[in-house]
Amino acid sequence: MPCTSSEELKQIMMQARVYTQYGKVADYIPALNQADPDNLSVAISHPEGNCVSAGDVRMKLSLQSISKVLALALALMDRGEDHVFSKVGYEPTGDPFNSIIKLEISKPSKPLNPMINAGALAVTHLIKGESVQERIERLLYFVRKLAGNPSISYCEEIAASEFETAHLNRSLCYFMKQHSIINEDVENLIYLYTKQCAIEMNCLDLARIGLVFALDGFEPLTKEQLIPVSVARICKTFMVTCGMYNASGEFAVRVGIPAKSGVSGGIMGSVPNRFGIGIFGAALDDKGNSIAGVKILEMLSKKYDLSMF
Amino acid sequence: MPCTSSEELKQIMMQARVYTQYGKVADYIPALNQADPDNLSVAISHPEGNCVSAGDVRMKLSLQSISKVLALALALMDRGEDHVFSKVGYEPTGDPFNSIIKLEISKPSKPLNPMINAGALAVTHLIKGESVQERIERLLYFVRKLAGNPSISYCEEIAASEFETAHLNRSLCYFMKQHSIINEDVENLIYLYTKQCAIEMNCLDLARIGLVFALDGFEPLTKEQLIPVSVARICKTFMVTCGMYNASGEFAVRVGIPAKSGVSGGIMGSVPNRFGIGIFGAALDDKGNSIAGVKILEMLSKKYDLSMF
Amino acid sequence: MPCTSSEELKQIMMQARVYTQYGKVADYIPALNQADPDNLSVAISHPEGNCVSAGDVRMKLSLQSISKVLALALALMDRGEDHVFSKVGYEPTGDPFNSIIKLEISKPSKPLNPMINAGALAVTHLIKGESVQERIERLLYFVRKLAGNPSISYCEEIAASEFETAHLNRSLCYFMKQHSIINEDVENLIYLYTKQCAIEMNCLDLARIGLVFALDGFEPLTKEQLIPVSVARICKTFMVTCGMYNASGEFAVRVGIPAKSGVSGGIMGSVPNRFGIGIFGAALDDKGNSIAGVKILEMLSKKYDLSMF
Amino acid sequence: MPCTSSEELKQIMMQARVYTQYGKVADYIPALNQADPDNLSVAISHPEGNCVSAGDVRMKLSLQSISKVLALALALMDRGEDHVFSKVGYEPTGDPFNSIIKLEISKPSKPLNPMINAGALAVTHLIKGESVQERIERLLYFVRKLAGNPSISYCEEIAASEFETAHLNRSLCYFMKQHSIINEDVENLIYLYTKQCAIEMNCLDLARIGLVFALDGFEPLTKEQLIPVSVARICKTFMVTCGMYNASGEFAVRVGIPAKSGVSGGIMGSVPNRFGIGIFGAALDDKGNSIAGVKILEMLSKKYDLSMF
Repeated sequence: MPCTSSEELKQIMMQARVYTQYGKVADYIPALNQADPDNLSVAISHPEGNCVSAGDVRMKLSLQSISKVLALALALMDRGEDHVFSKVGYEPTGDPFNSIIKLEISKPSKPLNPMINAGALAVTHLIKGESVQERIERLLYFVRKLAGNPSISYCEEIAASEFETAHLNRSLCYFMKQHSIINEDVENLIYLYTKQCAIEMNCLDLARIGLVFALDGFEPLTKEQLIPVSVARICKTFMVTCGMYNASGEFAVRVGIPAKSGVSGGIMGSVPNRFGIGIFGAALDDKGNSIAGVKILEMLSKKYDLSMF
Repeated sequence: MPCTSSEELKQIMMQARVYTQYGKVADYIPALNQADPDNLSVAISHPEGNCVSAGDVRMKLSLQSISKVLALALALMDRGEDHVFSKVGYEPTGDPFNSIIKLEISKPSKPLNPMINAGALAVTHLIKGESVQERIERLLYFVRKLAGNPSISYCEEIAASEFETAHLNRSLCYFMKQHSIINEDVENLIYLYTKQCAIEMNCLDLARIGLVFALDGFEPLTKEQLIPVSVARICKTFMVTCGMYNASGEFAVRVGIPAKSGVSGGIMGSVPNRFGIGIFGAALDDKGNSIAGVKILEMLSKKYDLSMF
Repeated sequence: MPCTSSEELKQIMMQARVYTQYGKVADYIPALNQADPDNLSVAISHPEGNCVSAGDVRMKLSLQSISKVLALALALMDRGEDHVFSKVGYEPTGDPFNSIIKLEISKPSKPLNPMINAGALAVTHLIKGESVQERIERLLYFVRKLAGNPSISYCEEIAASEFETAHLNRSLCYFMKQHSIINEDVENLIYLYTKQCAIEMNCLDLARIGLVFALDGFEPLTKEQLIPVSVARICKTFMVTCGMYNASGEFAVRVGIPAKSGVSGGIMGSVPNRFGIGIFGAALDDKGNSIAGVKILEMLSKKYDLSMF
Repeated sequence: MPCTSSEELKQIMMQARVYTQYGKVADYIPALNQADPDNLSVAISHPEGNCVSAGDVRMKLSLQSISKVLALALALMDRGEDHVFSKVGYEPTGDPFNSIIKLEISKPSKPLNPMINAGALAVTHLIKGESVQERIERLLYFVRKLAGNPSISYCEEIAASEFETAHLNRSLCYFMKQHSIINEDVENLIYLYTKQCAIEMNCLDLARIGLVFALDGFEPLTKEQLIPVSVARICKTFMVTCGMYNASGEFAVRVGIPAKSGVSGGIMGSVPNRFGIGIFGAALDDKGNSIAGVKILEMLSKKYDLSMF
């Protein structure tokens, strides 16, 4: 069984860390740009319950775009595949994650997939609940179960900071409201979405959630089905085709692991039937992915032959 | 002197009216789609104070996009040319009036011109005033002076109806707020903009305002300078290059009169140094211009050789 | 071991055939639009050498876009990964396969991936050889080895027909020549490319080539390495992320098998480490994929749990 | 009568010359980039036959995009307005002059106007003649008559140089051939078009042609009608709405004179009913217009109140 020693993992992490100098921390969200670009932590969560890690695993990161996968899983469980995909497409796109162009060009207007911002907002819109508060609590409850960690919550400060500056997401929402893709109050949706993005955890939690997806939705120890198989597979598919922003295609070629990154520097990986990976490294490459995180995954994939392809 | 007889004008109007059957009334703004597509009225306002008209000139129309020219004039007077054109460009565009694509593609992001919605919103943002109320009152005061009609106001019902449904304009505003083109509260700006679009008048008022532009900003009788010459010329230039939506180029070739149309079916024309024209005919062609109104202007231009070119 | 009985396969094929009535044969290439939309054939090629099939397996199809995968493999073997991906990107796109827009918008100009026409032309440009004739013969030699069938060739009539009408591909080539992505004579490249697209085989051959990719490049019986492992994996990755035109994302979710389709109605599938699939059914759905072919793959994937995800 | 003294004109030219340092000579056409950026010449041609000039008026320039206006006039005379505008639109565009995007997005595909490259190629395609040779000779004959100068011809070297490198224009042509906008051999059309662009003259000739357009197509002295009035007006309209590349709107506001520029640094101006202007100054601004030439026109317009608006 590969990668069960913390020492191995630490060595890989040390090799990857030299790349942090070529990246930079996200600056467009005020609450994020104070992260130390050299901090790096990584965890691998195995089905048998053992977990290896390296770096300062107590460091927390906000999920940001990684939350798109979790919201998609919940929305699919809440509404079913047909309903969800009547509002958002399946197809990858070469456009930037926050682009609005395709919403205007596509007839009928529809976000191309759930991993770009427009699609993620349309998905979060579908999370059930009587109120925004109930919806965020349902999402938190779901995330806590996936991570097996009842203490997970969102960071009020980050959520508030992103709420203040989320004008582009508001623009996307109003465009979609015009085209009846969403029909709730935009401020409510942004309120919910910024809290979703601000959910915080450490790389151990992240690895554990990755493991649940790797196991087709089963809790590793109790074997409880936390996510239906079909939903877990849909999520992994989108992680492959569009999980790493506009580097997803290259990442699939070079690494071949279903993974989703966020602008906070987190990456969640799911090696089907094998293990989950959680990484946190705030320095980003020019596509918006953790620069050292991608290196770690590349080295792991090469060393242990993890590519699906 | 051409076109001083109501009888002549009536005959031209009768010929143009047959085309209303090929147009249709705007349906995207609830308050507009009850207009009678066959109603048609036209007025020509001469510098000497005489005015000829045909059709039911008591009918009122809301200015809609025609107001973009008036707001531009006021913003130029309020802020100066340099300030205004640091926020909005000079160039015509082949994109639809409500398109958001160029805002994303252009670096730096900037609306292409003041006649598309994004540009008009950026211009209205520049109208001075301590409050939205003061700003709309300043605009109304300006419009009343141009028309020489102190009773002009906006229609609350139309404004409210458009405010409810202005999601695309909100989308444009938040996109521009993201890029620091505007920095006020978006709901405030939409509130002001929908009132601006709902300013109501009849074709006589419209012809009179067209005359002021035709006379380089001078009040025809008192010779008071209501608009600086340079501002009046800038407005006429945009009327030629982008006043008739995506038919501006064809209109310039076929008619050659500075003109601005609105989705309510109004057209304001300014024949430089000669006269102003006001038309109201709610049936629109596929570009969004009054179908009979364009015909009237074409016939007038041919008959009296009104083309600038 | 799944799907080793022709009877099973025949039943699946019969169920899929009812969908041909909702598709239509490609009409933009004169030589293709005479295919019988109801003809359907399918073959599965197993590593042990056994092959099951259904339908009239003697029917030949021209590879069309399926050839893009084979040319990519050869170009990667000829030039190496770094050279190839300096000319063409890795990323899927939501744009149509023949779109030129991203070539203009992307800076520097570069086709997004090897599966869209622009990228495929850039890849074919990289196939080594002193002359067009030598290059097509090298490609044929390679394809014959993959299929284990020395009689495979291209159809002169189809190649000539496509050469006549390939104006859009010429447009893409000249655009790329302007941007130094290609530097050979455009007519030569179109001549080579249309021959590549016109390579003909039946579904047994196609299944056998699919098997070679499924086996990471190894000849199933002799275990000869026909394609380097890394090249075979790159090809399978692109088959997943962009093998089925603008339905690739949905196909990955619903089927989860690396596959490449062509406008002739062919689909080549590669179930990693398991078997190869060849399908021919000329009636296409609105995305350009064989409508019955997609149904067959969906049923096979469900029945035998073939999804990679 | 304004601007009849060479001394006045010389002073304006001297003031404008200081701006040449901020511009640069076109470098994408090899034969052009050897021009001296400081050379500047200007001529004004009056209806009475007198002509004032400044700078070295013997210098010749190739027309480049200025030829688009002349080809449009001839095509309109050859084919009539309806035929020409069935192949090319009337509308200005905010896209670059050599953009291909709108050809793909617009349904049906059609170049937006005759001043962008795609539209100009479609117009040149319409020039009548049994052979390319006859067509270029018919165009030359027409240009010579307009200029009153039988010695005008094209520069073989420039034509050949542009023919070699016209890949983007070939790309546009094949795209249009695909969509049946043009149906001749692309190499023939490029051959004709590059000769058209390489027609050479000095600023006196250019001013004289500008005068003919200013006079609605009449030869100034003989009063012969060289161009029908309607055709001359159409040409002037396009000069206003899209004659100065993506600075046309700003130029209309600041200068207000129908004008057409070329990448060689030439500008032809037509002040309606007054005079023609020819300018040559090879240093271009960032929009592709002669930087000193635009300044000269701005100063002339301000000083003599030449704006149409």
